[in-house]
Amino acid sequence: MSHINLQDDLPGIAGLFHYRPETAGPLSALAETLLRAPNTLSRGERELIAAYVSNLNECKFCASSHSAFAAAQLPEGMNIVSSVCSDLDRAEVSPKMLALLRVAGKVRQSGKAVTVADVEAARDAGASDVEIHDTVLIAAAFCMFNRYVDGLAATAPDDPAVYAMSAEFIVTHGYTAIAG
Amino acid sequence: MSHINLQDDLPGIAGLFHYRPETAGPLSALAETLLRAPNTLSRGERELIAAYVSNLNECKFCASSHSAFAAAQLPEGMNIVSSVCSDLDRAEVSPKMLALLRVAGKVRQSGKAVTVADVEAARDAGASDVEIHDTVLIAAAFCMFNRYVDGLAATAPDDPAVYAMSAEFIVTHGYTAIAG
Repeated sequence: MSHINLQDDLPGIAGLFHYRPETAGPLSALAETLLRAPNTLSRGERELIAAYVSNLNECKFCASSHSAFAAAQLPEGMNIVSSVCSDLDRAEVSPKMLALLRVAGKVRQSGKAVTVADVEAARDAGASDVEIHDTVLIAAAFCMFNRYVDGLAATAPDDPAVYAMSAEFIVTHGYTAIAG
Repeated sequence: MSHINLQDDLPGIAGLFHYRPETAGPLSALAETLLRAPNTLSRGERELIAAYVSNLNECKFCASSHSAFAAAQLPEGMNIVSSVCSDLDRAEVSPKMLALLRVAGKVRQSGKAVTVADVEAARDAGASDVEIHDTVLIAAAFCMFNRYVDGLAATAPDDPAVYAMSAEFIVTHGYTAIAG
């Protein structure tokens, strides 16, 4: 049961967006810009960063959601998502994605944990400054979304079908449609 | 020096907003809504939550900024901000603010750290569900802003006058004015 009376039975962040439309607007616009706007990182790659951070933060709702959204938009599907989340060092991602995911993992610990060497490794693997910027902000944003969802004990369904349905919705309509 | 070439010498988040206006829009709208929109928590009280979390996260730029913004908008000024940040249990805040700041401190650790008892304590001290919601989201949002600023090693001026000037700007014009 959620910590406050959300006056609906929508799962996870959807219930929070419905409860407080004032903050749902900028939050959904942020997710849309970071994860779906035109970018040299694909939508699937950006969702993979979101899934990776949410999994490290053990946020069941966000990890299940963004794993499904990444799988739906990556050619390698759920296999690569599971492999990144279970053992990043052995995951078959590009050297650039590996370096960016390592930066994201550092951001998740603390902003200060990101070193010049972490950023240089990403740059050496071909990441642009904008890609490094966006990776840091995606990781930071999921440190917010994860705390928002779990800090209010929003519901996280067990049934994988719920997340697969959400993936279809997000891939088709985007994040701002949830706040609508 | 910042981890990426920000192409300006604006301090802290202002440099990041200038570098990436696409994300500055939703981020500044989120700060404006959380910290300045009409609310039963005063602007000073909400800035105090932001300052408290940023101080725990040891983010010099955000802690200095939001301490100055809180001090400028609380009748007790910087004394109460320093006292909350140095020893919350002895700070002379209302029982409601004390309970909300404790919830914020839990969110900073992890969303899962917030217990039913933490939320009940806030409610018993007079906090409404919306105030509990907003406290959780402010604390979560500063776990993002702190990681964003430090994860890219954005500059944090030493001179307190810089933060006092920012406070005057924010109190007068608000956050959306930084994003231009």
